[in-house]
Amino acid sequence: MADSELRHARAGLTQVIEPADNLGTHAAQAWGPIRLLEIIQGSIPSQQDWIALAALDPGDGQYTKMLRHKLGEAIDRWRRRGKYLQPETALHYITKLGGKFLVPEDPHWPPALADLEGSAPLGLWTLGEAPIPQVEASLAIVGSRESTSYGDRATTNLVAHARGMGLTVVSGGAYGIDATAHRAALERSGQGTPTVAVLAGGLDRLYPAGNTQLLQQIAKRGLLITEMPPGMRPNRYRFLNRNRLIAALSAATIVVEARYRSGALSTANHAHDLDRTVGAVPGPINVPTSAGCHRLIKESPTQLVDDATDLDAFYGSTTEAPPASTAAANQRNYDILDLEEMLVFDALPVSTTTNISHLTGLTGLPVPQITGILTRLERYGLAAQTTSGWKKRRDTLS
Amino acid sequence: MADSELRHARAGLTQVIEPADNLGTHAAQAWGPIRLLEIIQGSIPSQQDWIALAALDPGDGQYTKMLRHKLGEAIDRWRRRGKYLQPETALHYITKLGGKFLVPEDPHWPPALADLEGSAPLGLWTLGEAPIPQVEASLAIVGSRESTSYGDRATTNLVAHARGMGLTVVSGGAYGIDATAHRAALERSGQGTPTVAVLAGGLDRLYPAGNTQLLQQIAKRGLLITEMPPGMRPNRYRFLNRNRLIAALSAATIVVEARYRSGALSTANHAHDLDRTVGAVPGPINVPTSAGCHRLIKESPTQLVDDATDLDAFYGSTTEAPPASTAAANQRNYDILDLEEMLVFDALPVSTTTNISHLTGLTGLPVPQITGILTRLERYGLAAQTTSGWKKRRDTLS
Repeated sequence: MADSELRHARAGLTQVIEPADNLGTHAAQAWGPIRLLEIIQGSIPSQQDWIALAALDPGDGQYTKMLRHKLGEAIDRWRRRGKYLQPETALHYITKLGGKFLVPEDPHWPPALADLEGSAPLGLWTLGEAPIPQVEASLAIVGSRESTSYGDRATTNLVAHARGMGLTVVSGGAYGIDATAHRAALERSGQGTPTVAVLAGGLDRLYPAGNTQLLQQIAKRGLLITEMPPGMRPNRYRFLNRNRLIAALSAATIVVEARYRSGALSTANHAHDLDRTVGAVPGPINVPTSAGCHRLIKESPTQLVDDATDLDAFYGSTTEAPPASTAAANQRNYDILDLEEMLVFDALPVSTTTNISHLTGLTGLPVPQITGILTRLERYGLAAQTTSGWKKRRDTLS
Repeated sequence: MADSELRHARAGLTQVIEPADNLGTHAAQAWGPIRLLEIIQGSIPSQQDWIALAALDPGDGQYTKMLRHKLGEAIDRWRRRGKYLQPETALHYITKLGGKFLVPEDPHWPPALADLEGSAPLGLWTLGEAPIPQVEASLAIVGSRESTSYGDRATTNLVAHARGMGLTVVSGGAYGIDATAHRAALERSGQGTPTVAVLAGGLDRLYPAGNTQLLQQIAKRGLLITEMPPGMRPNRYRFLNRNRLIAALSAATIVVEARYRSGALSTANHAHDLDRTVGAVPGPINVPTSAGCHRLIKESPTQLVDDATDLDAFYGSTTEAPPASTAAANQRNYDILDLEEMLVFDALPVSTTTNISHLTGLTGLPVPQITGILTRLERYGLAAQTTSGWKKRRDTLS
């Protein structure tokens, strides 16, 4: 457990440093959160501070020089936001809400966030008893805020299968696919935490208001997470950067329904950057509702997902995946036939019967070979022997 | 122009040797079509014939030994089909129909068929005045025989764009997507041959009967092609192998609508084997009608096609492809904003206005930087300056 001074410092940093501000993450790493906060509060960086910064430099000092310059500007920027710096109030508030402020020094800090490197969050404000699930057991499902019944149904099917695999759903808090994914996870029993919502604003005011009840349910049975302290409202910048947390916390991200420029694509792109598995559900091409999913599949290494069992491959399930459709499994696979078998199969009549001597004339194959082939075709269920001769079991041309 | 003895021999070979029978193609190559036909008609292969066969062997003679054994069996097989050997009748018939029998020795033989190597056809029976189009100007469009209106519309859109590019459509002669592709090509003007149908049976009886009128139209304004001589009926084996010709004659093959085990997938697989471009149109996942298209995209290097302009990339069109949707193009691209620009954009109000000093407090950025950013945001059409101050031009969160 991190000590309270450290937690206090990091809480303050989340109040003045915006998400994914690499300079903030670098400075916290070089100086420690406590010293960084002191500097933001007015302390002048010492010679020793600048030396500590140089330790981050992998090269010839050029990077340190650039970093020092940029960091000087950033410190000014953070200082000008000083009026927001009220870590005690925020920590008090989150406790009152029944939540926590988790820092990287805590044992339960998710190690997967380290993959974000310079844009790793400075701390996470959470609401809910459930621990943050392991990345290997988390599946991000994201998509359009204006989902259609088609997208909602695909989401529900995916979530049902995912929960059956013991996976935790991770998504945002928006209307549409996000909300459908959470609802489906809450409605379905299964091992572990059902669902986690990663929000772009503080936990004091759940956004959007229309999802308040759903988000409260998630806080009760799952977990709400945000890097924004209480009091901070979501905005476009925070939404887009929130998406990197959804991607980082999940082994795979699936975009269910998204238009050509949907925000959900940014989550997929973050997941690509993090070398996570990305999937997208296709849809009809004559409406724009799945154009973003198609775009991902066309332009990036995104897996097409058209069946919930596709998840098995994503999570390296060792159980044999059932075929995509039962109809397909029941249909005989003619591909296994070689040239000679195919010739005999094609020569067999459907409504009448024929004999081996007639088949010889039709196919050009010798009698012993035809006899062997007919036996195999019978075994495959493709030919049948009646009292009057041989016939085809089925007649389909494709 | 090949001489008549050669044409006569190859016509006969197509009557006894089934499509894609590699032994037939090898033997015709080693011995020439005329000598091969003599042997099938009863002449015993001489020592010199076997030496000519060995010339095909790239290695240590093992292949020749195997080939000699297999070829012996094949010759027996072809001989037993001797009753079909009536090249004069077939050549007379195709002339009477107004068609031709094209052989590899003819100047207009499509060079692309050489890519089929051992399974290249022994000859092609054709009906129609149009020449076989260049592979670079041909697009195969195939799919389900039981197409839906969704698949038919996608086909029509693709064909309209393809004809606008001067491409010739290549397909089978089946109901569903094949027929829709041909109809769309015939209905639309454009450069060159509109459409080519590659059939699995002889041209004396067009199959399926319900498409007779359409196929006659294609013979009039495009071309019918088959490797089966008049009198030979299509069967499963011939349908599946016919598909290799569709794939070989076209630079790209697009599967529009196909179930999980559709015959259209075999055309796509042939195209993959030939290193041709393969595309598939996605569709809804809650019905089985596009499951085969999804399977191709999942399991093979198949391009997702959700817009007719995707063809431009397939055929290396140098014209700039328009964006996938006009709505998408009109939407502003917020991705171009950097962190500081995003902070300022997010801090701008929509219904009221604000001033630069207030923006400094909200964003932590110095006044000169904010001034510069506001100017850029105005240029991007994202911010507006009024007499009372600055405001956002639009408010959208994704």
